[in-house]
Amino acid sequence: MLNHMTSDNWEILFIDFNLATMTNSSSNYGEILGGAIAIGSGKILWIGKKGNLPNYNPDKVKVVHGNGQWITPGLIDCHTHIIYGSNRAKEFEMRLKGKSYQEIAGAGGGIISTVEATRKASQDELYEGALKRLNTLKNEGVTTIEIKSGYGLDLENEIKILNVAKMLDKNSPLSIHKTFLGAHTVPPEYKNNPDDYIRIVSEEMIPKIAKLKLAETVDVFCENIGFNIQQTEKVFKAAVKNDLKVRIHAEQLSNIGGTKIAAQYNALSSDHIEFIDEEGINAMTEKGMVAVLLPGAYYFLRETKTPPIELLRNNNVSIAIATDSNPGTSPINSILLMLNMACTLFKLTPTEALAGITCNAAKALGIENTTGKLEEGLNADIANWDIEHPSELSYQFGVNYLLSLYKEGELIT
Amino acid sequence: MLNHMTSDNWEILFIDFNLATMTNSSSNYGEILGGAIAIGSGKILWIGKKGNLPNYNPDKVKVVHGNGQWITPGLIDCHTHIIYGSNRAKEFEMRLKGKSYQEIAGAGGGIISTVEATRKASQDELYEGALKRLNTLKNEGVTTIEIKSGYGLDLENEIKILNVAKMLDKNSPLSIHKTFLGAHTVPPEYKNNPDDYIRIVSEEMIPKIAKLKLAETVDVFCENIGFNIQQTEKVFKAAVKNDLKVRIHAEQLSNIGGTKIAAQYNALSSDHIEFIDEEGINAMTEKGMVAVLLPGAYYFLRETKTPPIELLRNNNVSIAIATDSNPGTSPINSILLMLNMACTLFKLTPTEALAGITCNAAKALGIENTTGKLEEGLNADIANWDIEHPSELSYQFGVNYLLSLYKEGELIT
Repeated sequence: MLNHMTSDNWEILFIDFNLATMTNSSSNYGEILGGAIAIGSGKILWIGKKGNLPNYNPDKVKVVHGNGQWITPGLIDCHTHIIYGSNRAKEFEMRLKGKSYQEIAGAGGGIISTVEATRKASQDELYEGALKRLNTLKNEGVTTIEIKSGYGLDLENEIKILNVAKMLDKNSPLSIHKTFLGAHTVPPEYKNNPDDYIRIVSEEMIPKIAKLKLAETVDVFCENIGFNIQQTEKVFKAAVKNDLKVRIHAEQLSNIGGTKIAAQYNALSSDHIEFIDEEGINAMTEKGMVAVLLPGAYYFLRETKTPPIELLRNNNVSIAIATDSNPGTSPINSILLMLNMACTLFKLTPTEALAGITCNAAKALGIENTTGKLEEGLNADIANWDIEHPSELSYQFGVNYLLSLYKEGELIT
Repeated sequence: MLNHMTSDNWEILFIDFNLATMTNSSSNYGEILGGAIAIGSGKILWIGKKGNLPNYNPDKVKVVHGNGQWITPGLIDCHTHIIYGSNRAKEFEMRLKGKSYQEIAGAGGGIISTVEATRKASQDELYEGALKRLNTLKNEGVTTIEIKSGYGLDLENEIKILNVAKMLDKNSPLSIHKTFLGAHTVPPEYKNNPDDYIRIVSEEMIPKIAKLKLAETVDVFCENIGFNIQQTEKVFKAAVKNDLKVRIHAEQLSNIGGTKIAAQYNALSSDHIEFIDEEGINAMTEKGMVAVLLPGAYYFLRETKTPPIELLRNNNVSIAIATDSNPGTSPINSILLMLNMACTLFKLTPTEALAGITCNAAKALGIENTTGKLEEGLNADIANWDIEHPSELSYQFGVNYLLSLYKEGELIT
């Protein structure tokens, strides 16, 4: 139990910072001007106006004096695919040189080229590549990240990828949330039998991965060019049976009803959703699902249909933002750029954008009771910024104003 | 005189790197695979295939062994406005919260708010803000940057800004190219007399700034909402009379014929040019003017008309790319993001995009005889990247693969 009026367990006390608590993000970042925040044992033990601080012993607490800098929750990138082999730069170049889709596929391009490179890569090679992307995000203030598998597409290689995620979780200070995305695309060997592949995903892979505790959630790419509703349901049924939570890639390029089905399985989130309709949004509201918007993919694919922000707002759907960092459709590994893109491309307000990579991203991962806000009792995941107002985080891009970053009370950047 | 067959003056020799020389950028980055490059006295003294290296004394030369990493010319950001007071984050937030242009102007928004903040700021304050932006660009591989004045709009404050640029040139290892942009917008005190302001710019400011050697070029924002053709010509005449080169912001929002007029004054470049017509492009071809494209402003303003890339290509106009880093229309201070945006938004090829921030950017600044390519006799401005192919620089964004950066032979990053 936390005792709010004692400072006995305080290890670090930040004084004279402005706090974007995100506890009431609809109202100006839940800001506390002239605030203080005390942390100890990895938790936030006290937060409030400096003037309300209880007595504390300055000899027993490390006091960090600010000068009006801002503290936000540690950032959360709740949708990534950062573990993969090789890259798709040559395909990118071919397309810009006017090569056709067929020519690119003929030259070994497309998602299957990433699957092949990922299968060939050793666990260590995958680790090295992903670690660079992870550290880049950490240097932008990220303390929690979700990572999906989905470039292995057979049991051995999906396990290899999830093991890399597990190694990252162990070796890096960040928290890694692992998602099994066996149903990312149909592997070449099942090209003509996607139902057979889905049977293997559901009956063989999911039970095994659940048993090995290699994932917390199961995801499906539900789309015209991905898996259909029946296939999606089969995967979700297996997930639920194995006590795994589900989420979905849906309505990115068309609307085949993915979000509605996901809601029936109490999905945490539906991601992309440029083409979602009101029925889909109602399903999200009813089940408290989070809308995870991915402006990097929208930008990189030159999409023109934006997600229905106003409808999401009107229906009180929590909006999260993520990088979708992946080699094919969003090789844009920057959470701070996503803040700017969410505002510039999707017209979110800076408060909504910041909520999208803090409190609402935590909700999309089902970890809102431990992180994503500055609140007593939550993890001391906090980022300290040399800015005069939190809107600067969304407004400008390039200069990184992060001063320091703490994960569960430990200084990590 | 350089003696190509002697290694006497070599100080550093890079061996086993792949070189994107950009000397023939229409053909695959002018690449030399398995290359070597020797530098001394700040210059590139030898470049070629490793197998063609002349004899050298390994005791007298620092040899850097690569492993297939790539070397490109140091990058050049040829259009920026990085010296200014305050920022416009609150205006950005107001707009996204649905406030009208009038309400924002009433709350002190718009370019005039930056002018007021810049006038109020001390030289040191401006220096500190600009240095952060400069260093961010340096950390991305930039060795040369152009900086415009234009937020002072009176003699004293324009000189203050250009003095900051001069301080940056002196204190930072980068080369700074200074541009006087007194004709950026009409200052509040001349709101009803723009012609009077242009007279002061032409007859008082330009001669003084030329005498103080505070600028190498003079720029004008020629636009419906900026200065008209007659005003632009008056400024250009004064520039030429004072031995300053000219360049122009033109055809960003409309076409009033700015590029054609600039060509008559042998302008180095015309910048933005989304709305340029064939006549304008012909004028550029005839005078060898560079087209400086600014995808950050296009992105941030949500413009929909892209510059006529195919026409520029067909007319052999050299294309440069720059950040346009500024607080109002492109608070996007990243040259590497511009590479990606030039490809993603404007459909340049990765080779064209890299040429746009190396050889063609040098040409836009009139310094193509000293930098922008890897060529014997040019400055040893070189960037070393941990990538397998130069297309990766455009394709992905976020992870910074810069390994080291040399400015005139000195390691600076």
